[in-house]
Amino acid sequence: MKKIIFPFLFLTVLKAGSQPVQEKISAYISKEQHALLKEYANFISIPNVLGDSAGIYQNALFIKSLLDNNGVKTKLLTLDKPGAAPVVFGEVFTPGATRTIAFYAHYDGQPVNPEQWAEGLEPFKPTLVTDRLDRGGKFISFPTDNEPINPDWRLYGRGSSDDKAGVYAIIKAYEAIIKNNLTPGINIKFFFEGEEEAGSINLGDMMEKYKDDLKADCWIICDGPRHQSGRKQIAFGVRGDVNVDLIVYGGKRPLHSGNYGNWAPNPAMRLAQLLSSMKDKNGMVTIKGFYDDVIPLSASEKEAIKKVPAIEGILKDELAIAAPDGGGRSFLQLINLPTLNINGMQSMNVGTMASNIIPSTATAVLDLRLVLGNDVDRQISKLINHIKSQGYYVTDKAPTDEERKKYGWIALVNKRGSGYNAQRTPMDLPIAKNIIAAVQTTTKDPVVLLPGVGGSLPLFLFEKKLGAKPITMNLVNYDNNQHAENENIKLGYLWQGIETVAATMLIK
Amino acid sequence: MKKIIFPFLFLTVLKAGSQPVQEKISAYISKEQHALLKEYANFISIPNVLGDSAGIYQNALFIKSLLDNNGVKTKLLTLDKPGAAPVVFGEVFTPGATRTIAFYAHYDGQPVNPEQWAEGLEPFKPTLVTDRLDRGGKFISFPTDNEPINPDWRLYGRGSSDDKAGVYAIIKAYEAIIKNNLTPGINIKFFFEGEEEAGSINLGDMMEKYKDDLKADCWIICDGPRHQSGRKQIAFGVRGDVNVDLIVYGGKRPLHSGNYGNWAPNPAMRLAQLLSSMKDKNGMVTIKGFYDDVIPLSASEKEAIKKVPAIEGILKDELAIAAPDGGGRSFLQLINLPTLNINGMQSMNVGTMASNIIPSTATAVLDLRLVLGNDVDRQISKLINHIKSQGYYVTDKAPTDEERKKYGWIALVNKRGSGYNAQRTPMDLPIAKNIIAAVQTTTKDPVVLLPGVGGSLPLFLFEKKLGAKPITMNLVNYDNNQHAENENIKLGYLWQGIETVAATMLIK
Repeated sequence: MKKIIFPFLFLTVLKAGSQPVQEKISAYISKEQHALLKEYANFISIPNVLGDSAGIYQNALFIKSLLDNNGVKTKLLTLDKPGAAPVVFGEVFTPGATRTIAFYAHYDGQPVNPEQWAEGLEPFKPTLVTDRLDRGGKFISFPTDNEPINPDWRLYGRGSSDDKAGVYAIIKAYEAIIKNNLTPGINIKFFFEGEEEAGSINLGDMMEKYKDDLKADCWIICDGPRHQSGRKQIAFGVRGDVNVDLIVYGGKRPLHSGNYGNWAPNPAMRLAQLLSSMKDKNGMVTIKGFYDDVIPLSASEKEAIKKVPAIEGILKDELAIAAPDGGGRSFLQLINLPTLNINGMQSMNVGTMASNIIPSTATAVLDLRLVLGNDVDRQISKLINHIKSQGYYVTDKAPTDEERKKYGWIALVNKRGSGYNAQRTPMDLPIAKNIIAAVQTTTKDPVVLLPGVGGSLPLFLFEKKLGAKPITMNLVNYDNNQHAENENIKLGYLWQGIETVAATMLIK
Repeated sequence: MKKIIFPFLFLTVLKAGSQPVQEKISAYISKEQHALLKEYANFISIPNVLGDSAGIYQNALFIKSLLDNNGVKTKLLTLDKPGAAPVVFGEVFTPGATRTIAFYAHYDGQPVNPEQWAEGLEPFKPTLVTDRLDRGGKFISFPTDNEPINPDWRLYGRGSSDDKAGVYAIIKAYEAIIKNNLTPGINIKFFFEGEEEAGSINLGDMMEKYKDDLKADCWIICDGPRHQSGRKQIAFGVRGDVNVDLIVYGGKRPLHSGNYGNWAPNPAMRLAQLLSSMKDKNGMVTIKGFYDDVIPLSASEKEAIKKVPAIEGILKDELAIAAPDGGGRSFLQLINLPTLNINGMQSMNVGTMASNIIPSTATAVLDLRLVLGNDVDRQISKLINHIKSQGYYVTDKAPTDEERKKYGWIALVNKRGSGYNAQRTPMDLPIAKNIIAAVQTTTKDPVVLLPGVGGSLPLFLFEKKLGAKPITMNLVNYDNNQHAENENIKLGYLWQGIETVAATMLIK
């Protein structure tokens, strides 16, 4: 029976180099799966939305107890700042170990709107379903200890994938090791953040305050989905990010489009012309020097990309996109380049609220993603220089009447927040190689290695504040609906996630 | 005292050809001004927003009583349609008259938001102020019969300028004539509409149903402000108008701007590029053939335009515009050309609601104003052909998944309502010349003659349904805040409006 439920694990074991050890881990998960499922469901049932301090603390204490039960030396890291969520920290010293790996995951989740969830689901009432609900999955009860668990079943609930799965896989990997009387090959640190979804606003301060506790040779970030092909995935970098507000001005007040039409400048048209000047028809940026400081991928990074299964076909079909941007470049080439995207654009109203006027202003919010070599302020300077080259007077506040009367073309450009640069850990660092090899022992399919993902996380903080290199291991199914309603995890991915993390803890 | 209050009237009288008659009219207004002000304030105090049927009917009955009191044969024109506002109709036969002029004005006003009105003002509580409130005007009580009335005082209230002033000037002009035992030179018809601000939705049906009642050699439309220079103004045409919704599509759902940025097409950028392709930097339309079917102004119309005082300087200063559109063409040249304006534009959100995504759609509402020679459907065809020439598949409904997968560039183009063409009455028609001459007798400054104004009214209906030529007389001060909060009229303009209309009623 168990062989049917975990065929993958045993296949793996046949090929893995450290067979006996991997086999023990897999067997432990298989034996304990009913208890694990129950315990994980309890974890998911604790509300984890930032702002709900009681829920956040209850999560932190639940996690701490999981570590304590396994004999880990734990503490809550806190800041003297109202509302800052505690970090659950733990450490394990391994006699004879020469290296330390810190494992990061976050226990907070995205805000929830229960009304948007499917009928029968509630964000904090963990619910078992036989398949994806939108593919005909049926609700089922939690199994008794004698009923088999199908790894294709899904557990629905906020945080089930993002990122309590990371927290749980890390803790249970360590548990599986010690319950089998095995010994980790490294010193281990546990670091579970409670405000990642709010932009890790206090992470830098936490790192500074607890710098001594947080020393490690490498940080493994357990967050995000595996490759769309279903393969295991390790990512070595993220893009940086900064947003910019851009406003273009017309007359001082909205004007009757009949009485003034053709004479009064229309800021919506001028904004369209300005934005249009920034990209070609293929969506490539035409701002001078935009790609100049990009550090190209290394030979091994290019090699890794070549081995990643192509997903363009799946994406085009799923998103109904016939003509992607990029002038024929591959998806992976493109997410390793900086972007200039319009997040939002508005000038007066559309729809039923539209009226026959010439707007007074037109606004766009731009999103600049950065790759290695780019710098937030340098990127914004390129943007501003471009806008100036289009004849604009650039200001950082609403223009005065005097400025309006003096300059025919006025653009306000404002950086939002401070933004941050990209981060990339070389794939050929010795410890990176060890981690890749360890994860590869747990699966027969080649592990997908991404030099960088398209999204952004403030991973630069690990380099800047701790001098450490982060590596991201993606554990959950790609169709988990993270950040949206109906979040879920495929159980098989949770079990495999535990195996994956355990393999890295066994690195010597 | 009265000489000081009405210096303009007496100056005029010295120069006018029909001195004794004009003098009598002016003297009557001067003598009756306290009663007129009181009565006009009563009129303004009756709420006139469409949807408030009780208020609308109360206005209609008030107007009818004003006509009845002067012995005019009146009736309410109605349609068998719920919510349709009645037209107040009246007629006067003048023994021996060979021509009939119908006078049009509307008694409904724009919707009001009392909270937006200045402190101390309420839309339907007529209030006297010594000057424009934003220029330091002081609230004053209504004068007793012994206190002089300053023609620079303003009466604030919804409809005070737009367009109860038109209704009142027409009725009081007739009253001034008959109370002086004078005789009009023409047959007169009175036509006061109650739903102009809602787009005259039933005007065509009214004209059809009451065709026989509405026969006239000429229609004089009393609506809209005088020239910014303060001169009296007659307009002989309006632009036509049609609005178009334009939507450009990206992926089926909004996408994470990090995970998909550079690959997923951004509809906001594509819309910007599409809009940008429609106009040059001077705001001139670059759509093929856009100006080809424009019927140029006639020699006399061009001549008239040359005599209009330039207002670009005033507008640039007041609106704080340093670089108007139009590539150096004059304001009047430009409002006699068709337009393509963006009324509104939106893609996802800006401001605090903005998020790091790639939008799924981007929308613009376009406003196409038309001049003589243009045709609504032909103009929209030019637009659609242009969009196709930019590589777009054009549809009139949201694309299906199959369409999205087939066509890389998709634009939805939908005409709003039916739109209507421009209307222009030749300035050298005999009756037009008579009207110009009559108005000129009431003022020493040259009357501003506009072949066409930039705005739009469905004046084509007068030609199409009644075979009649409309001519528009603008009576009120240009800074009356029509359509907005704090609407007002300068009292001197109301008195002069009565004189202007009376002069046209005296045409033989």
